[in-house]
Amino acid sequence: MRCEVVAVGTELLLGQIVDTNSAWIGEQLALAGIDCHRHTAVGDNRERMLAAFREAIERSDAVIVTGGLGPTQDDITREVVAEVMGVGMERDPEVVAEIEHRFSGRGRQMPANNLRQADVPVGATVIPEMPGTAPGLVCPIGAKVFYAVPGVPWEMKAMLEGTVLPDLHRRTGSDAVIRSRVLRTWGRSESGLAEVLADEIDRLDVEGGPTLAFLASGMEGLKVRITAKGADEDEVAAVLADEESRVREIVGPIVFGVDDQNMESVVLDELVAQGLTLATAESLTGGMVGTRLTDIPGASRAFRGSIVAYAGDVKRGLLGVPDGPVVSEAAVVAMAEGACRVLGADVSVAVTGVAGPDPQDGEEPGTVWMATSVDGAVEAWKVMFPFDRTLTRQFTVITVLEALRQRLIARRGG
Amino acid sequence: MRCEVVAVGTELLLGQIVDTNSAWIGEQLALAGIDCHRHTAVGDNRERMLAAFREAIERSDAVIVTGGLGPTQDDITREVVAEVMGVGMERDPEVVAEIEHRFSGRGRQMPANNLRQADVPVGATVIPEMPGTAPGLVCPIGAKVFYAVPGVPWEMKAMLEGTVLPDLHRRTGSDAVIRSRVLRTWGRSESGLAEVLADEIDRLDVEGGPTLAFLASGMEGLKVRITAKGADEDEVAAVLADEESRVREIVGPIVFGVDDQNMESVVLDELVAQGLTLATAESLTGGMVGTRLTDIPGASRAFRGSIVAYAGDVKRGLLGVPDGPVVSEAAVVAMAEGACRVLGADVSVAVTGVAGPDPQDGEEPGTVWMATSVDGAVEAWKVMFPFDRTLTRQFTVITVLEALRQRLIARRGG
Repeated sequence: MRCEVVAVGTELLLGQIVDTNSAWIGEQLALAGIDCHRHTAVGDNRERMLAAFREAIERSDAVIVTGGLGPTQDDITREVVAEVMGVGMERDPEVVAEIEHRFSGRGRQMPANNLRQADVPVGATVIPEMPGTAPGLVCPIGAKVFYAVPGVPWEMKAMLEGTVLPDLHRRTGSDAVIRSRVLRTWGRSESGLAEVLADEIDRLDVEGGPTLAFLASGMEGLKVRITAKGADEDEVAAVLADEESRVREIVGPIVFGVDDQNMESVVLDELVAQGLTLATAESLTGGMVGTRLTDIPGASRAFRGSIVAYAGDVKRGLLGVPDGPVVSEAAVVAMAEGACRVLGADVSVAVTGVAGPDPQDGEEPGTVWMATSVDGAVEAWKVMFPFDRTLTRQFTVITVLEALRQRLIARRGG
Repeated sequence: MRCEVVAVGTELLLGQIVDTNSAWIGEQLALAGIDCHRHTAVGDNRERMLAAFREAIERSDAVIVTGGLGPTQDDITREVVAEVMGVGMERDPEVVAEIEHRFSGRGRQMPANNLRQADVPVGATVIPEMPGTAPGLVCPIGAKVFYAVPGVPWEMKAMLEGTVLPDLHRRTGSDAVIRSRVLRTWGRSESGLAEVLADEIDRLDVEGGPTLAFLASGMEGLKVRITAKGADEDEVAAVLADEESRVREIVGPIVFGVDDQNMESVVLDELVAQGLTLATAESLTGGMVGTRLTDIPGASRAFRGSIVAYAGDVKRGLLGVPDGPVVSEAAVVAMAEGACRVLGADVSVAVTGVAGPDPQDGEEPGTVWMATSVDGAVEAWKVMFPFDRTLTRQFTVITVLEALRQRLIARRGG
């Protein structure tokens, strides 16, 4: 089974938007074990769309087209797919009713243009998921198939997950269920992880067994993705659970989260579970630790606030940092203690360092002092990051929160 | 002149990385007035690369290939381009010397694999820019041409700007110089901007005249791009300057920056110019105002720090917010005053609100109170954002900083 992706939209060719849809679809196809050998982007132009669609369906068994399903005259994916199918268009009264219903539900009148979205190639079926006003289409051509879905990412994803991927899966003639689980880690490099997991990857190198893949994702951690195949959900769940515990045993406590959990959500959950409150004192990150924590809805259950002490005399006056260099152990310890005291928190993290590009107070860019305070006991350490300003700040955030996570786990005897 | 882009790399098809290169190249081609009708992504596979390259050069006058130029056995762009050209490969001694030099300069021995990177199709020339160890290639095929550049974005960009775009420009046979300038705005919607600029866009609708385009860029503002063509740099600079002043006259003071300036850099520059220091008091943004300001190297010239007062009693205890609701005019005024007092700053911004998804203290998500304090005088106002948590936080940052910018300009009598 081979499937290609064709993204439609002149704005993609002009670079006004980056095509993240094709990458996302490519990942889903790979997870489903379906080969994808080509992605194509083409503008809103009948002749060029026709050529791209015909070539794609010639090479492959299935083609997923994103974009060009909107209500304006530019949006001609429906018509071009009908031309490739060699059929005419007919207006679908159910889709008309559905679109009218959506407009009236928001107290708005439907522009006449939107009726175009109810025109469907003869022989195509409308995808039941319809999060926006653009219906998606399943368009068979002999034994092959075109799927037309909107370019709006969340509309596209709903249709892929609800209809397109299951339909592709049925067409592969396989009953197998494929699922994956992501273990998020922090504390080892990608090559370091590959090294400790090398024997396990060799062991897994058998037909039909689970697979491991690595993905470095910046502040989101280094991800280890386990993918497993099985006859049904229960079997796959058991394989995933077994492989997850093997990987955890090998890599140790550097796994901080699973799937959508991130470092901030995990730390906040742990604080709430232990009934602790958190404060932060930040210098080089300028507020990024607090920003990331408060990205999580409900952060207020544990997070009290942050002192962003960028100027040296703010560190001294507000946080009690002693005279002397502000990128130092003494400074970061005082910052961690000051954060707990000034903001009335049980636990704190503090960071001070040189984000770069220039040295500061004789310290090289990338020099960062970090500290955590738990139950009044402060631990401080120094890190030298070999990165630019942006990555130095980002890695400072995840590194100091990972250290806090480890102390919180130790605190509850985990 | 038509040019296509082919991105090589199985990791693109698997969705492990998003293809931002093609978008960037597409934008450069559009700016240079060169038509680009298709982007293609293909895996590291000889047969499929060969098919994609041949189809692309058949359709177009020039093809830019990114990726597949590394030192490993997977990297076969050089060989496949030679096959399309119908020539063999030869090892370029200058490239060998250059790669050896780079390794020895870092005190490392060159792995034998890297010698593969010095193999060049007969008749191709090496691109002089070489920021990494992968040389780029200009490969003529009759009157047409292949450019092969690395997939690493900064290496690719250096080669495009230094060699590929000028070479394409020469091949168009045009002596025209094309340049663009981006005016960044905040305070009007995209459709609102299009409306006030409609007459100007009509006026510009003549062959060879400058053009205007809009691009909504979230926290980076709503961009208006002016593109102009002329016989030489001086002529183009004059057209851009003239059109910039027309646009500024029409849209008014909502233009906050030009090209790479962002709201934070402009506010910091204005503060430094007036010898003022800045503090912030943040609630719903959790430190994002400070984070964005300190993204700018040299922020310490004006930025003193921030009080992130997420918990209500921190707002009261540390910033002097009176009893009563914390999403209110009284609260935000006290926060702005408290930021100046506690952090010892001349000027401040303060924000408190409901980021969502749930209501808080009877206020709907998206309700935000903002304030600026300049020379001890506080101005406060309320905004209702119809967005999700993420966008509400982001738009709060740019909105409050734009208000401060307007007050600073008024202060210096601008």
